[in-house]
Amino acid sequence: MTPSFSSLDERFMRRALEEAQLAFDEGEIPIGAVITDGKSVIASAHNMVERLCDISAHAEMIALSAASLHFRSKYLPQCTLYVTIEPCAMCMGALRWSQIGRIVFGAEDTKAGYKRFQTGIEHPKAIVESGLLADEAAALMRGFFAVRRR
Amino acid sequence: MTPSFSSLDERFMRRALEEAQLAFDEGEIPIGAVITDGKSVIASAHNMVERLCDISAHAEMIALSAASLHFRSKYLPQCTLYVTIEPCAMCMGALRWSQIGRIVFGAEDTKAGYKRFQTGIEHPKAIVESGLLADEAAALMRGFFAVRRR
Repeated sequence: MTPSFSSLDERFMRRALEEAQLAFDEGEIPIGAVITDGKSVIASAHNMVERLCDISAHAEMIALSAASLHFRSKYLPQCTLYVTIEPCAMCMGALRWSQIGRIVFGAEDTKAGYKRFQTGIEHPKAIVESGLLADEAAALMRGFFAVRRR
Repeated sequence: MTPSFSSLDERFMRRALEEAQLAFDEGEIPIGAVITDGKSVIASAHNMVERLCDISAHAEMIALSAASLHFRSKYLPQCTLYVTIEPCAMCMGALRWSQIGRIVFGAEDTKAGYKRFQTGIEHPKAIVESGLLADEAAALMRGFFAVRRR
């Protein structure tokens, strides 16, 4: 059962993939995220853990901080987060606090994804969907680790 | 079974409680954190969610970023985090990424603490201990919410 995504969903996820590509080009694990209000991009970010020497500088965390600044609000129930890879427990915990209304991720992360640690971290009202442009997101990750692990 | 804490543990947790008091005085949920290398305080922080309008500005997150900057290292296996209240799933997810060696928290948080979402978020090598100065940490929280919820 694949959720049905709109062409707008796909457009926003393509933007997240562009962010992931930027991370790739900078030698960061290639993950990108975009937050929208349903119509427009409010924030977009990519993983910057290496550059900032900070394990919390995941794409989702940076995008959340930027969107909260934009709306001058801690809570983002009207927003959707698009992220190329399944969020980790830290990011899903942050998304829970933000009360973001909808989360769309691309490829699953069976190693570090939040689902490994039991569902329930996500906000009870959040809609979580997955699989959108998953192959492209996963290919970027494979490409990254293929080079690193040689 | 109460873990046995050293006088140094107690000193560091008292410092975390001072941070929690600062948060209280600023109208923030009163939680404080300290990161040490076992001998000295490397970073100390308190909750700044309201001031920064950022749900990720928990005491633990700010202390982690500061300690990583101090050591110019993403990973902190040699460090201990003292935090007055049980970390949430976001913070425990971040602590996992940081590979911090030991986590000591004061009072449990049955509402938002990570243990509610199943254990396993914590790093498999991390030692997690609780209960140190728990009554004082819990009293600060009770005092804060008593005023807010009147």
